Amino acid sequence: MVEREGVHAREAASLVFATAGAGRIVGITGAPGAGKSSLIAALIGQARNRGERVAVLAVDPSSPLSGGAVLGDRVRMQAHTTDEGVFVRSMASRGMPGGLAPAAPDAVRVLDAAGWPWVLVETVGVGQSDVDVGLVADTIVVVVNPGWGDDVQAEKAGLLEIADIVVVNKADRPGVDQARAVLDAMLDLVPVSSGWRPPVLVTSAVGERSGVAELWAAIDDHQAWLDERGSRDARRRARLAAELRWLVGGRAGRPGLRLCSGPKFAEAVAEMADGHLDPRSAADAVLEAPEDARG
Amino acid sequence: MVEREGVHAREAASLVFATAGAGRIVGITGAPGAGKSSLIAALIGQARNRGERVAVLAVDPSSPLSGGAVLGDRVRMQAHTTDEGVFVRSMASRGMPGGLAPAAPDAVRVLDAAGWPWVLVETVGVGQSDVDVGLVADTIVVVVNPGWGDDVQAEKAGLLEIADIVVVNKADRPGVDQARAVLDAMLDLVPVSSGWRPPVLVTSAVGERSGVAELWAAIDDHQAWLDERGSRDARRRARLAAELRWLVGGRAGRPGLRLCSGPKFAEAVAEMADGHLDPRSAADAVLEAPEDARG
Repeated sequence: MVEREGVHAREAASLVFATAGAGRIVGITGAPGAGKSSLIAALIGQARNRGERVAVLAVDPSSPLSGGAVLGDRVRMQAHTTDEGVFVRSMASRGMPGGLAPAAPDAVRVLDAAGWPWVLVETVGVGQSDVDVGLVADTIVVVVNPGWGDDVQAEKAGLLEIADIVVVNKADRPGVDQARAVLDAMLDLVPVSSGWRPPVLVTSAVGERSGVAELWAAIDDHQAWLDERGSRDARRRARLAAELRWLVGGRAGRPGLRLCSGPKFAEAVAEMADGHLDPRSAADAVLEAPEDARG
Repeated sequence: MVEREGVHAREAASLVFATAGAGRIVGITGAPGAGKSSLIAALIGQARNRGERVAVLAVDPSSPLSGGAVLGDRVRMQAHTTDEGVFVRSMASRGMPGGLAPAAPDAVRVLDAAGWPWVLVETVGVGQSDVDVGLVADTIVVVVNPGWGDDVQAEKAGLLEIADIVVVNKADRPGVDQARAVLDAMLDLVPVSSGWRPPVLVTSAVGERSGVAELWAAIDDHQAWLDERGSRDARRRARLAAELRWLVGGRAGRPGLRLCSGPKFAEAVAEMADGHLDPRSAADAVLEAPEDARG
């Protein structure tokens, strides 16, 4: 219902907002191919061994042209489909920047309000895009692979800055020790203003699994630290502010989207193609207002 | 100047829009760590061997918190810094979705108008984010690595849908043949409405370089095909429409950004944190208008 949007979505979202809050929300993010889904499948197994119930929301970036989400993530988690202590749901991100689906924060609250004590949210992320997983998660696990230290890239630093826990997954591949050393060196450069220094763990999520129990323990530690420090509320407040910024920005931008399907837009494109109008002047024409060059 | 925005940026952008058009713009995109910068360094070498002059615009995603672009890309291309037939420039994407810097289309036109016959634009991309490289490039090269075929993911399909040429880089690693087979099978599923079926090439851009001459030849072929088919203009027109949509959307959204720094915003966040206001109702309050639930 919250995915479909409209009046009922609003009503449902409002109800779950009032009810949610007890669930522990864990974001699992990293580049495509890092093995996030396999790691989540392993975490589900770990949670079940400990008698914990767990829900998973996997946010698939949809293909830009075909617009559909594939079922790869769900396929990989199917070992748990007959277990009533596990709930897995995929959502398409529908081209939203940041890898987060428009209804993802509401969907997380639905799961939370429905009584799932743990909600794992999988998002794809590169650099600043990942910041959006911070809209929903208390604990952010960043998944990388051996080879991480092979080159210097800003998006990697960006990923580390949002991490509460860093995991080097695919421990069977060469370069694990080097990756861990580089990660530790980079993490030493990130100021630890909060008092939590992200641990670097090593896992193997397929075949002979290893390190998964330690990862679950680290997630548990971080959740306990949030409660002890009392910073859970501060985080939640910052998340709500970010979500509001996101909603206001999106709604304020809708008139722009409408303008882009009108006749004035088509006319402006034709004039650009003929070389009579540069892009910024064309935008002036579509918006019927000169640009405020002060931004 | 175009990066700094403001009145002079507009004037410069308008001038170069009228002058640009002769340059061949090649987008090089792929996930972080795919080896795009090394491949571009190899392509520069290839271009110089053929007596071609080439400019590179490397769009670094900036770190979300520190906000700065690192110089990794430029470092990797420094072999060419004393060559007057080569120009390399990095731009921060400043958190813009799609991995494209706000001024990137203007910056490409500056290089084009300045007489660079080839402009290579490097962007990071995952899934639909990559579509934005289509705002600037005639030819899009998607760079992947061996291991591509290891799992099924939607963002991979999205990358292939925008590719004019697919490159399996890091040919020294295991899994090249399998990656090529999977790519060919996936490309067979993408409708070839244009008449151009993206070739799959294999390269190694460091150490004993291989496949780089073939890649340059494939880029050349695609450019020749654009001219023969006459679809260069159609592509350019589609790109201009996308750029206008981007500008109009951004400018229409600015009032929303302003609202997010006002006192009403802070008040709404406080009410959300107290549980008195759900996020959508908080957005109503900030925007001083009820949501049009029809979207």
